[in-house]
Amino acid sequence: MAHRLPFHEGGCKNIHGHSYQMTVEVAGEPDMNGMVLDYFDLVSIVEPLVKEIDHAFLCDNSDKLVKDFLKSSSLKVVFVDFPTTAENIAHWFFERLAEYFMPVKNIRELRIIVSETERTTAEVSGEIRISSTDSKLFAHQSHQNT
Amino acid sequence: MAHRLPFHEGGCKNIHGHSYQMTVEVAGEPDMNGMVLDYFDLVSIVEPLVKEIDHAFLCDNSDKLVKDFLKSSSLKVVFVDFPTTAENIAHWFFERLAEYFMPVKNIRELRIIVSETERTTAEVSGEIRISSTDSKLFAHQSHQNT
Amino acid sequence: MAHRLPFHEGGCKNIHGHSYQMTVEVAGEPDMNGMVLDYFDLVSIVEPLVKEIDHAFLCDNSDKLVKDFLKSSSLKVVFVDFPTTAENIAHWFFERLAEYFMPVKNIRELRIIVSETERTTAEVSGEIRISSTDSKLFAHQSHQNT
Repeated sequence: MAHRLPFHEGGCKNIHGHSYQMTVEVAGEPDMNGMVLDYFDLVSIVEPLVKEIDHAFLCDNSDKLVKDFLKSSSLKVVFVDFPTTAENIAHWFFERLAEYFMPVKNIRELRIIVSETERTTAEVSGEIRISSTDSKLFAHQSHQNT
Repeated sequence: MAHRLPFHEGGCKNIHGHSYQMTVEVAGEPDMNGMVLDYFDLVSIVEPLVKEIDHAFLCDNSDKLVKDFLKSSSLKVVFVDFPTTAENIAHWFFERLAEYFMPVKNIRELRIIVSETERTTAEVSGEIRISSTDSKLFAHQSHQNT
Repeated sequence: MAHRLPFHEGGCKNIHGHSYQMTVEVAGEPDMNGMVLDYFDLVSIVEPLVKEIDHAFLCDNSDKLVKDFLKSSSLKVVFVDFPTTAENIAHWFFERLAEYFMPVKNIRELRIIVSETERTTAEVSGEIRISSTDSKLFAHQSHQNT
């Protein structure tokens, strides 16, 4: 997936990409078979969302320069309403997946980990049934391996 | 270690196996030498439990088909009273190791992470001295790398 | 980095070393650009502290034997006031980095993970603005992959 951060004063303002990796964790009480969620069910929920953005340019709607170019091209693009930092991408998947998991009664928490590289990762986690006023409880994390 | 999930509608009902990996984390106040637990002591506690099940078939006692076969064979088998999902295996180790760590006063929490593959992991964590009524606090997690 | 643990009854009392790896995680609310902290800023804070101890002997001031030798040598050494376990090294970095992050208002939590090997890791995490009486909330963890 390609992106850029127009506000960035370093190299990230240029068009570039990453081989993103995402980890999806669901937490809750296991069912009578001893599973929180069947791995195959997890894959069937996550995979279509990943395919949507695979090999696309993830374009912030406020990025007029790239938006104008991509709208007039036939290149794969997904428009979003946020700067495409790893933190925001993780938050976006948290919100989309939380909707899917909401009806699954034994699932209580969700954690999305988005790695741009082996050394840079963002993470968003939280309860999936909290009121919007509690949304600050989400833990946003950046980390660095040294 | 080999297992099967008789209830599973996909491939997991067949006899198969994994090169399981387990991570054991203990949390608490370090002692006067600056250690929560000497790594060598941790190994000496965990290794015998791992050897018990290494290269064995982990057989749920309710799985009559395989149980009857294995009881009449000389093949290595360990019988347990739960479906052998990664979540349940992690919970089983949590309970067995919690007993070992209970007398170690500075150890407060335990986390067991059981990976069936690089992409599928279950995790059980919690305080080791909570009453049984609090056991719902255990966080059971499945995760997927994409 | 080299070290030894004079109190240790096993091999760790000898002078040895590790290719330590450290992970630094910061948690809090992302800023208006969707970042908890710019990765480049994180690197610019952490890297100088890592360079200080890179290829040095980390020597506990109470280790008279090695201290006397190193003080009279021209070999790189960093003296500290604690046994140089992975737990204590993580705690040391937690305290030094917490000071750097204190003025960054949106950063709330810090987690330092220090690995001596792929199988042995210590972790210290906590809020960076708690009073000293709350310091027991730090979670010290040792873990082992099996």
